[in-house]
Amino acid sequence: MQNIYDNHDFFKEYISLRKSGITYNDFVEQPAIKSVMPNFKDRSVLDLGCGAGYFAKYCISEGASTVTGVDISKNMINLAKLENNHERIEYICKPIEELDFQKTFDLIISSLAIHYIEDYSNLIVKIKSLLKENGEFIFSTEHPIVTARNEANNWVKDVDGEKLHWAVDNYQEEGKREHNWYVEGVIIYHRTVSTLMNTLIKNGLRIEKIIEPQSNSIGLQKMPKLINEKRRPSFIVIKSSIS
Amino acid sequence: MQNIYDNHDFFKEYISLRKSGITYNDFVEQPAIKSVMPNFKDRSVLDLGCGAGYFAKYCISEGASTVTGVDISKNMINLAKLENNHERIEYICKPIEELDFQKTFDLIISSLAIHYIEDYSNLIVKIKSLLKENGEFIFSTEHPIVTARNEANNWVKDVDGEKLHWAVDNYQEEGKREHNWYVEGVIIYHRTVSTLMNTLIKNGLRIEKIIEPQSNSIGLQKMPKLINEKRRPSFIVIKSSIS
Repeated sequence: MQNIYDNHDFFKEYISLRKSGITYNDFVEQPAIKSVMPNFKDRSVLDLGCGAGYFAKYCISEGASTVTGVDISKNMINLAKLENNHERIEYICKPIEELDFQKTFDLIISSLAIHYIEDYSNLIVKIKSLLKENGEFIFSTEHPIVTARNEANNWVKDVDGEKLHWAVDNYQEEGKREHNWYVEGVIIYHRTVSTLMNTLIKNGLRIEKIIEPQSNSIGLQKMPKLINEKRRPSFIVIKSSIS
Repeated sequence: MQNIYDNHDFFKEYISLRKSGITYNDFVEQPAIKSVMPNFKDRSVLDLGCGAGYFAKYCISEGASTVTGVDISKNMINLAKLENNHERIEYICKPIEELDFQKTFDLIISSLAIHYIEDYSNLIVKIKSLLKENGEFIFSTEHPIVTARNEANNWVKDVDGEKLHWAVDNYQEEGKREHNWYVEGVIIYHRTVSTLMNTLIKNGLRIEKIIEPQSNSIGLQKMPKLINEKRRPSFIVIKSSIS
């Protein structure tokens, strides 16, 4: 199991970026995933890959009864406990793959963590078992269009550096990809759209909504390159519920 | 409404290809869509974009009680009546957009026709209204990955003609694309994965299964270029049912 967030160089870069408030998360992924969240009031939440607890704190501010945040990274969990502590939030430092609870949850969420998980099928079986009746599972992950190609950087550019198009290849070869993101060799797992969907359906989760988000308008002002999200989606958000 | 199949040159080429039995339909799309068909026994079927009636005849051979085939092309409907006539099949020459029935159906299918339809949302509303309780809607269409880019031919090749990758662009700009397919300027409509799914869901259709098909093994022998379906999917098959 990869624990890139405990790599010192990666963590430093990542946190400095997140704190800037000028990221893909802020303008593309978070507005999208928040737009499909149900009413949190009095609901118990499990946050898989909770990072520094930003979303956990958000759930509490929206009325969640309890939030359990799980993350493989000690760095992240320490930061979460420092900056996003709350009496109704519990942070657990553990790989998502080793989830083990006696209780069940109204809502399980995961923001941009599932592409780090090798065994998606097994994860969904566990998630299903941890959901209450009428429970919901909402997650965002890297879009299959961006994870497909074995090579790492897929904007094809002309001699002047203008982006010509996005390169897709190897779509049906699911599995490991190495990307460069602050540090070399960050490992993620490519899965097709059909695998993302069918695995949920097979486990009794009903697809409620799909979002392939673009940037919001503030993002387009503050990070002009986010206009490229129109050209190919970086992320996909899937809302599902026990059917 | 486009009626490319009544273009003389297109029709001649298309029919000669289909009769060869060596096509993307034979080895990629048809095996996939057939794999998610329910038991046809005693069920009424509406086939949207029925073409020359191959699938209509297949439904009858599998026990369907009746098949209604609708196609905009006179050429196609004439051929269907000639070659795939059956007392329990009715062929209607009409644009799919002008569907108008007093009865409802157990199963509505559409094989590679929906990418010709401009107003997908309106079509799905009609389809929903034409389905019986527990009815199913199963269709195949060109994959958003292949329809996205405004340009027509998206294999990027090196100087020796080797395929380097597939070019994606303009993903979020839904709407008209001109492709060259036997003749120039065949018009299709690009829609995102999320639009394809969410429009069904909004209209009370539940997503049951997605297939992004590859070639079957006979296809790989008879049409070696079908190996490229591994690199990016040409089609998407969506099975949905009244929830």
